[in-house]
Amino acid sequence: MRPINFTIEKELPNSMARAGVLSTPHGDIQTPSFTIVATKATAKGVDQANWGKLGVQGIIANTYHLYLSPGEDLVARAGGIHKFMNFKGPIMTDSGGFQVFSLGAAFGVKLSKFLPEQAAREDAIAVYDAELASSHGRLAIVDEEGVSFTSHVDGTLHRFTAERSIEIQHKLGADIIYAFDECTAPNEPHQYQKEAMDRTHRWALRSLKAHRQNIKANQAQGLYGIVQGGRFEDLRLESARELASMDFDGYGIGGSFSKWDILGILEKVNAELPKEKPRHLLGIGEPEDIFIGVAAGIDTFDCVLPTRNGRTGGVYAKTGKYQITASAYREDWGPLDEGCECPTCTDYSRAYVHHLFRTKEMLGLVLASQHNIYFLTQLTKKIRESILDGTFEQYRDSFLEKYQAK
Amino acid sequence: MRPINFTIEKELPNSMARAGVLSTPHGDIQTPSFTIVATKATAKGVDQANWGKLGVQGIIANTYHLYLSPGEDLVARAGGIHKFMNFKGPIMTDSGGFQVFSLGAAFGVKLSKFLPEQAAREDAIAVYDAELASSHGRLAIVDEEGVSFTSHVDGTLHRFTAERSIEIQHKLGADIIYAFDECTAPNEPHQYQKEAMDRTHRWALRSLKAHRQNIKANQAQGLYGIVQGGRFEDLRLESARELASMDFDGYGIGGSFSKWDILGILEKVNAELPKEKPRHLLGIGEPEDIFIGVAAGIDTFDCVLPTRNGRTGGVYAKTGKYQITASAYREDWGPLDEGCECPTCTDYSRAYVHHLFRTKEMLGLVLASQHNIYFLTQLTKKIRESILDGTFEQYRDSFLEKYQAK
Repeated sequence: MRPINFTIEKELPNSMARAGVLSTPHGDIQTPSFTIVATKATAKGVDQANWGKLGVQGIIANTYHLYLSPGEDLVARAGGIHKFMNFKGPIMTDSGGFQVFSLGAAFGVKLSKFLPEQAAREDAIAVYDAELASSHGRLAIVDEEGVSFTSHVDGTLHRFTAERSIEIQHKLGADIIYAFDECTAPNEPHQYQKEAMDRTHRWALRSLKAHRQNIKANQAQGLYGIVQGGRFEDLRLESARELASMDFDGYGIGGSFSKWDILGILEKVNAELPKEKPRHLLGIGEPEDIFIGVAAGIDTFDCVLPTRNGRTGGVYAKTGKYQITASAYREDWGPLDEGCECPTCTDYSRAYVHHLFRTKEMLGLVLASQHNIYFLTQLTKKIRESILDGTFEQYRDSFLEKYQAK
Repeated sequence: MRPINFTIEKELPNSMARAGVLSTPHGDIQTPSFTIVATKATAKGVDQANWGKLGVQGIIANTYHLYLSPGEDLVARAGGIHKFMNFKGPIMTDSGGFQVFSLGAAFGVKLSKFLPEQAAREDAIAVYDAELASSHGRLAIVDEEGVSFTSHVDGTLHRFTAERSIEIQHKLGADIIYAFDECTAPNEPHQYQKEAMDRTHRWALRSLKAHRQNIKANQAQGLYGIVQGGRFEDLRLESARELASMDFDGYGIGGSFSKWDILGILEKVNAELPKEKPRHLLGIGEPEDIFIGVAAGIDTFDCVLPTRNGRTGGVYAKTGKYQITASAYREDWGPLDEGCECPTCTDYSRAYVHHLFRTKEMLGLVLASQHNIYFLTQLTKKIRESILDGTFEQYRDSFLEKYQAK
């Protein structure tokens, strides 16, 4: 039996939307589902002890960050990431590709190209010294084997290959791991996007091989491939077809820096992927995007926005997102979102949370973040129910009408 | 019946230690007890929803801070501080005296003296303009009627008198409120300490009068007087005797900037206070101090250190305080404190909390702070039990032997 099992419970006739159950070694995820982001094995102030109340079914942590600190060997000695962070439910780890490129090379900055004279050298990392980085103005250098990059924390030199990413992810021990991929800058031309995609496909095969060969007999982890291709539809479809031919346990879609690169062609991309396997949309999860994703056949989502917005006072509500720091809420005795049953809305008023933000009190960030997490988990829960009872389109329309009204 | 009722359950023969029950309009505090600091109606990231599990019986909030933001009128319109912050247990508010002097005039800076030519003017605040403040280098100016000071937040001008402090505290609506006092800098000479103390006694009488005259029929709040006198024993004893002659519901001891001003003479001070009334030691609460305070007849304590230490990685343990950020804990799979049953120690390892601090993750501050709060509430709980069963000295000796061993 596969470590990952996906059962489709219901499909809709007018779209690719579906409800299912994604079974993992650490329990099931009822899909569609929003998995929360716990990059460094923590959801930014929201205690794991509260995750049950917040409807959290699964989480996604990050290979790049955990590799840098505390290191995959330490996590392995803890007994794996579940024990290290004390979360017993399903965990995914992203392969680190996105972070190597987004943190190693700032967003919007032109990424370095394949440097053949260096890639020919096996010790590519050796030539990636401070002088070279400085002369190129680059923090990440791609070659056929992998990527050499500097840590965003302390500037030290590191190198990821497909095999290394899988090795780290084996040690971290998440239930679902990802093939190593190259994330291209959105402004790259078609030619470079194709080169990068082809390389990502070769890395996908190598990730798959490394996973099959090196996983321990007593360890059960599912491996997802990641569809790339930037903003070009032909490349995205080619990438989906190519990856579909490899026997991954599921598929991630994304690795792009802009959601507009992918949302419009998501349905066509998913149509190329094997229907019976689960699909995860990486890093995209605003409410309006989730409806688009579900209709296009996405099963799971993740996004940093619930906690990132929460830390800056951005609050999700059925009538739309708003800033709790606005003076309008100074004396508003209602909950953050009318009718919400999260711990924050059960216990506290907008006026109290507003006070906490205005006086720079940490509890404000925690309360807003946990509310936002609950908002997203409940949204996907209701979407799932609407698929099961055949009212998805009606639910979507009525939700978006209110949500965008503000 | 008084809003505050104090029943002594047991007294020890060899010290002034006692166990009792402090009844308030919002429930009982089993004493000795550590009340946690919630200055701005929050305990710095530790959600009220967890306070029950942390053994929190009562809290102390701050008049100065809540007056500045969100303002006492807004709290009153919320239905009082209990409703505003959603805590149903006993709440104290400090009068703001300490903060007016410690934040309005930085610690260690010589405070301004009584300025007779200005105090004669009823509009003393009017003369406290930016030019005067600048020419004097002072942020707080005392006169017979009260204190003019600038906000530490935005530099705006404010004025507290005994009557104003009581008015604000009536609106905040805590169960126990404090008379307005002048907190002197520790380096002030005897002559000034006496002047300030005499003024504080006049303010105490005015606080008592304002409380009796203005409290609403449907509101129940106990008023504590505050013993002053700086580091001088004769003044401290005089202050205790003078305040004992006024009919307060209880007594606060402190208002000093250094705990060494008071700990050594605490027993003599308490001997001057009416035995049947509760005594609170303001702002002092390290474990070793609590044992001294209890032996000297203190019933309740408060201290910012559990949360302040927690935010910087300082952790309380039975073997002594330590820094969880130290590399020694990088791979320590034990709890923050062996045998501790707090939510942090139940769920997480030292290695995980260390990781959170090292990667600057907010959850680390929350987990360390809640552990520290639990450590102090359990310490006073065990002290209480040891008084009730007559083993206080043995418990103290065995605790301190281990605590100081490290």
